[in-house]
Amino acid sequence: MSAAQTQLAWDTMLDLGGPAGSPLHRRLAGALRAAIETGRLAPGAMLPPTRLLAEELHCSRWAVTEAYEQLTAEGFVEARVGSGTRVRAVPRAATLAEHARDARAAAGIRYDITPGMPDLAAFPARDWMAALRTAITRATAEDLGQPRWGGHQRLRDVLSGYLARVRGAATSAASLRITTGIADGVGLTGAILYRHGFRAVGVEEPCWRRLPRVLAASGLEPVPIDVDADGLDVDALASKQDVRAVLISPCHQYPTGVALSPQRRAALLEWAQRVDGVILEDDYDSEFRYDRPAGGALQAAGPAHVFLYGSLSKTLAPALRLGWLVCPPHWSGEMRGDALAPYTPPTLDQLAFAAMIQSGAYDRHLRRQRVRYRRRRRLLLDLVGTCLPGVRVSGTAAGLHLLLHLPAPVNTAAFTSRARDAGVSVMTLGSLRSVDVACDDALVIGYGNVADADLPGIVRTLADLLQSSV
Amino acid sequence: MSAAQTQLAWDTMLDLGGPAGSPLHRRLAGALRAAIETGRLAPGAMLPPTRLLAEELHCSRWAVTEAYEQLTAEGFVEARVGSGTRVRAVPRAATLAEHARDARAAAGIRYDITPGMPDLAAFPARDWMAALRTAITRATAEDLGQPRWGGHQRLRDVLSGYLARVRGAATSAASLRITTGIADGVGLTGAILYRHGFRAVGVEEPCWRRLPRVLAASGLEPVPIDVDADGLDVDALASKQDVRAVLISPCHQYPTGVALSPQRRAALLEWAQRVDGVILEDDYDSEFRYDRPAGGALQAAGPAHVFLYGSLSKTLAPALRLGWLVCPPHWSGEMRGDALAPYTPPTLDQLAFAAMIQSGAYDRHLRRQRVRYRRRRRLLLDLVGTCLPGVRVSGTAAGLHLLLHLPAPVNTAAFTSRARDAGVSVMTLGSLRSVDVACDDALVIGYGNVADADLPGIVRTLADLLQSSV
Repeated sequence: MSAAQTQLAWDTMLDLGGPAGSPLHRRLAGALRAAIETGRLAPGAMLPPTRLLAEELHCSRWAVTEAYEQLTAEGFVEARVGSGTRVRAVPRAATLAEHARDARAAAGIRYDITPGMPDLAAFPARDWMAALRTAITRATAEDLGQPRWGGHQRLRDVLSGYLARVRGAATSAASLRITTGIADGVGLTGAILYRHGFRAVGVEEPCWRRLPRVLAASGLEPVPIDVDADGLDVDALASKQDVRAVLISPCHQYPTGVALSPQRRAALLEWAQRVDGVILEDDYDSEFRYDRPAGGALQAAGPAHVFLYGSLSKTLAPALRLGWLVCPPHWSGEMRGDALAPYTPPTLDQLAFAAMIQSGAYDRHLRRQRVRYRRRRRLLLDLVGTCLPGVRVSGTAAGLHLLLHLPAPVNTAAFTSRARDAGVSVMTLGSLRSVDVACDDALVIGYGNVADADLPGIVRTLADLLQSSV
Repeated sequence: MSAAQTQLAWDTMLDLGGPAGSPLHRRLAGALRAAIETGRLAPGAMLPPTRLLAEELHCSRWAVTEAYEQLTAEGFVEARVGSGTRVRAVPRAATLAEHARDARAAAGIRYDITPGMPDLAAFPARDWMAALRTAITRATAEDLGQPRWGGHQRLRDVLSGYLARVRGAATSAASLRITTGIADGVGLTGAILYRHGFRAVGVEEPCWRRLPRVLAASGLEPVPIDVDADGLDVDALASKQDVRAVLISPCHQYPTGVALSPQRRAALLEWAQRVDGVILEDDYDSEFRYDRPAGGALQAAGPAHVFLYGSLSKTLAPALRLGWLVCPPHWSGEMRGDALAPYTPPTLDQLAFAAMIQSGAYDRHLRRQRVRYRRRRRLLLDLVGTCLPGVRVSGTAAGLHLLLHLPAPVNTAAFTSRARDAGVSVMTLGSLRSVDVACDDALVIGYGNVADADLPGIVRTLADLLQSSV
């Protein structure tokens, strides 16, 4: 008989409280499990014989036997014939470490205003939970099998209708594929284009660097095309003889924030038709437009030549890993799953998104967020106007980021590194270019995931740094 | 003023019931949305001026304005200055089609006993829901950002402890990666092995064909190695000079159901050490062992040479797309994410799985399922014994499938096609081989996802067919 068994009073050691109404054997198993996990019952310790423990706890012997069997099945204890039940040596779960936060704290970063994140504190947890409940309640046994490649029919139906009414997209369930995000969809398209003889693809300069990398991984050479105040320079694109595909964010260019002008839109579609080319439309944040209703997707005007990509990463949370693409009808047959094809998101998440659209909760959330972001943008612009004289602002009409152009003598890259030392993590426009351009740099400020209350402190820090820079 | 506006009595057309306690403007928006979606309000129809509708509904004008604005934001209606609010032309969501079921019904299949599915009707929806609730409630804003490649730290900690106690695995959070399933993990490993000069990999003959295909896609040549009553023929493996890697399901070979004998286990590990090779252990269903406690993972005995793969596809549902791999410590640095790397599952699903392990609900579910499957297997064996004389059964010790060896004169492949005509979808052992072997075929019967009540009908159908075959 081990020390553990003789020295401990089992009825005081085991907290049998548990959730009201849960059976005693389950509460007993839980209490023993907790005792093992916290180390109160050490590896090698013997559990008392079932008869003795039942007496001590004033319960049936069956309840104790049942609890021991459960813990044996779980691997916490092992029973040997003739020698009782003993606690196994089990590694304890490590204390949870919030690694990223630690890393940030270690680097002394108080404020992260790099772009790319929506307001994660405003994640509509209750709406998402309710949508998941609907999804799980309605799921058939078949829905729980292998997800169908390209997405569940219900989400494809519902999302197709949504994109038509909100983005004006020319879409149908047949031309829609559910992906794990925009990069996933772009990579899938890149692989198909490569198989069809495409070797180069125009990309905006500057742009979100990940997408050219994804296309390069498919074998396509990214060819930078400059962006000016009217968006992508379509003449420059047309002058590249070997380029018949282009990746573009026409509604709100990332990161400059300009919109493709109506003339350029027309010219781009005309180009696509002339060269029998394809346009990859990155529709990453057009849910958030502040000055007027969001412009319709380019895809609406040229569905035969435009692939349209969107995701939940800016509207709900990147953690959900859910996105979509609309492909031109005559490419639809190519968009099939195979062993190498990207992965289809979990079915219940897909059905939850469908339920959230159908209940209206998704639209309501977006409307709330537009109000929230508009207010935050206003606050930020006011602070910049007051505290940062000489700083020009651009790219404010939409989305979750804007540009701050520092006065001429200031080296923006050097400023960024000093800002980081002062606890503000911020990104430069230059870092989103494929080549170094000394002039015309700017700060790219993401205000999506910043608390309103932090904005004054952030702008003051930048103002102090600026004052000591000029 | 349009026909719609004058002819309809708005207060009777709009069902403002809605959920109790939800604000009137939201119920009004919902009622208008429903009217548009069902076609009662046609495209082009004008909504009444806000003042008039407010009077008719005896509510504030604000509520009507708010509802109209919500629907405008959602794209259901459009407002033009001076000309009122009009229903937009929006494609209606298609009627939902349960495609797979339709296809199956069209093929006349009443019973599907092909292997590979767990009991989807027994999916613990309440437990999973509760786990999701815990995950969502505890999630920090940081948890909602981009998932960390390889998995959330909390799940890696918790799962690592679980695999140690239940599978005896030698693991730590650092050697664990969260994947989207076993094929994902095997594909990832294949790519890494190829980068390190591996060009061939032994695979069991017969086996689950998808995994050799995944390895082939990584550039590795699958080399079939025969399986006998003791499992993989290790001598045959060792005789292949260029093969330093092997994919194996040692605890319950798929599909034959044999376990790798202790002698073979030792020989295989000795081989791996001698050739400095790697063993890819497919641990796909060892949660379900009926005759005695599940054998520990091979990985436990040779963690330096064994990659271990598991998933939720057999324990909960394939739809969840969640799996893991444990990699040998000195390969751990190679297992990093990059633009091409497989995808990381959604964070909330990962946290839900962690919560389900921590609450004990996962272990309880497995225990319930073991009881359920054992009973079903018993019932099936009894029926086979009674109704199918001359049929030999094998591979019954574990898992969710078994083999039926038909009497010699019967051609198993032809029998399968007749069974399909009779409404029973069933698979042959031959279809899981890389080469045609005329003799020694069998039926591979999956009983995981079959209702107990259907078993008599299924076995009777097979018995009738058999009687007319011999």
